[in-house]
Amino acid sequence: MSNSSKKFVGGIDIGGTNTKFGVVNRSGEIIEQDRVLTNAHTQVADFIEDIYSKLMPMIERAGGVSQFAGIGMGAPNGNFYTGNIEYAANLQWKGIIPIAKMMSEKFGLPVKLTNDANAAAMGEMKYGCAQDMKDFITITLGTGVGSGIVVDGKIVLGHDGFAGELGHTIIRPGGRLHKGTGAKGSLETYASATGVRDTALELLAENEDTESLLRDFAINDLTSQTVYECAIKGDKIANEIFDFTGQILGEALANFVMFSSPEAIVLFGGLTKAGDLIMNPTRKAMEENLIQVFKNKVKLMYSELKEADAAILGASALVWD
Amino acid sequence: MSNSSKKFVGGIDIGGTNTKFGVVNRSGEIIEQDRVLTNAHTQVADFIEDIYSKLMPMIERAGGVSQFAGIGMGAPNGNFYTGNIEYAANLQWKGIIPIAKMMSEKFGLPVKLTNDANAAAMGEMKYGCAQDMKDFITITLGTGVGSGIVVDGKIVLGHDGFAGELGHTIIRPGGRLHKGTGAKGSLETYASATGVRDTALELLAENEDTESLLRDFAINDLTSQTVYECAIKGDKIANEIFDFTGQILGEALANFVMFSSPEAIVLFGGLTKAGDLIMNPTRKAMEENLIQVFKNKVKLMYSELKEADAAILGASALVWD
Repeated sequence: MSNSSKKFVGGIDIGGTNTKFGVVNRSGEIIEQDRVLTNAHTQVADFIEDIYSKLMPMIERAGGVSQFAGIGMGAPNGNFYTGNIEYAANLQWKGIIPIAKMMSEKFGLPVKLTNDANAAAMGEMKYGCAQDMKDFITITLGTGVGSGIVVDGKIVLGHDGFAGELGHTIIRPGGRLHKGTGAKGSLETYASATGVRDTALELLAENEDTESLLRDFAINDLTSQTVYECAIKGDKIANEIFDFTGQILGEALANFVMFSSPEAIVLFGGLTKAGDLIMNPTRKAMEENLIQVFKNKVKLMYSELKEADAAILGASALVWD
Repeated sequence: MSNSSKKFVGGIDIGGTNTKFGVVNRSGEIIEQDRVLTNAHTQVADFIEDIYSKLMPMIERAGGVSQFAGIGMGAPNGNFYTGNIEYAANLQWKGIIPIAKMMSEKFGLPVKLTNDANAAAMGEMKYGCAQDMKDFITITLGTGVGSGIVVDGKIVLGHDGFAGELGHTIIRPGGRLHKGTGAKGSLETYASATGVRDTALELLAENEDTESLLRDFAINDLTSQTVYECAIKGDKIANEIFDFTGQILGEALANFVMFSSPEAIVLFGGLTKAGDLIMNPTRKAMEENLIQVFKNKVKLMYSELKEADAAILGASALVWD
């Protein structure tokens, strides 16, 4: 049976906490899905066994491996070229893990791997709001800031497979220290969940005499969700947090546009739930920093994929190509 | 005769002052070349007639149009997709000029157009130091700062053909005003010829009591060449100019690496003549701002193409593909 006649693919998204997996059809519907704890197993082989015990029955119920074109996987530091997870900081398996090969041997199916952010971009291109686009960028505004860059219909991998680390580009030279990388002023230190919390703490400290609903929350509860809830109640500092974050994010997006001139930038993740409160200052700062030829051309969009499904869909999309 | 058996291509580089053109063979040798003044003609048709009167005899001497695979052109704001020069600020022909179509009709040959910076990248890939590379970036440090980005063996054009404007990325938010674009803190305001002069004036003003050979030059003569000559004589401020420029350029290059993870960045243009004086601080700042996975991997190189030939070679390289 040729690849084009297969009905299903498997999709696996390895996250820092959960690993989600499922069976996906050609329309992008998840037929069945489940999850395991990523760090429940100190040995990769045991982790694979755990997934196998749950995913293989799903594959059987869908007609068996002969109906499957393969399995797509997204993982932190997943390398498309090698099929290895390489030195992932937030996984307990250290060094180089040949996970695509191990999975392929276990399931008897072709397995493709890429990093989680690239998988998200694949998902947008195959099933989401970028289905008709050949040039776009996805930015995930979550715990960190991830990115997937598509140029001429293909994910930009770079010579070593590690391209697309836009969260680590420097947008405020000499600015906030990134505890993980040691760099100062990277986008991730401002536009991530941690970045929003740091901005909140800075603005609350700088404006000691300004009343704010945010002062009623514990520091660990200062999420973009909390800030949003305060902002829509008219809280001045909460609104300033989104303005500041949007200003920096917009400047960064302008730089990305001048690199690859995408048709759209697709935003994804917790911060986007603030809607226009974050989108308006972001768009304004982006447009202000673009040269004329790019102005008022780039679509700034939200992902249309359900967050719970996007990771599995994105990983599965790797296989159809 | 199929394209693969043709022996020659024409190469034309339209610059703000001169338009250079010539006949190039498959080995990247320029058989004959000449130039005309770009702005000597208010009508594009007269400009094309001028080139034709000089280039067509060269083509005849090489065996006639049947020996030619086509003509490649590089021009400011040249768009590969449309074959048009679109709103080029430093040319006197305003609006949209369908120059590829006009040239093709005149010469009876296929004509391909791209912008001058992309042509330079094509030249490096076909004839220069990037011949074995599929992922690299060229940066031209001249009157302005231009760039050509190659991903997976192809020039990154973007959805509209205008990708690769790295000189306009913002590297010092709120920094120097770019008189042409109105943006503040773009790379071009620091790493161009004008940028180096502005840095010289700033440092001379900030260090009024420091002796410097640079104070003996007319302001218009404060070029990277002048600064270089003073720097190698041990002039403190001249050396600081290169350190400062290299710091900013290196930070910008780090951002570019984290975008497309190129095997090499190829530098080109006047500033590169300063050799290690500019290269060392540039490399240091680039490495300092890269995350671990990219450190000590990216080759920072000078173009090996003769500057006088590179423009014609780059344009001609468009045709062979």
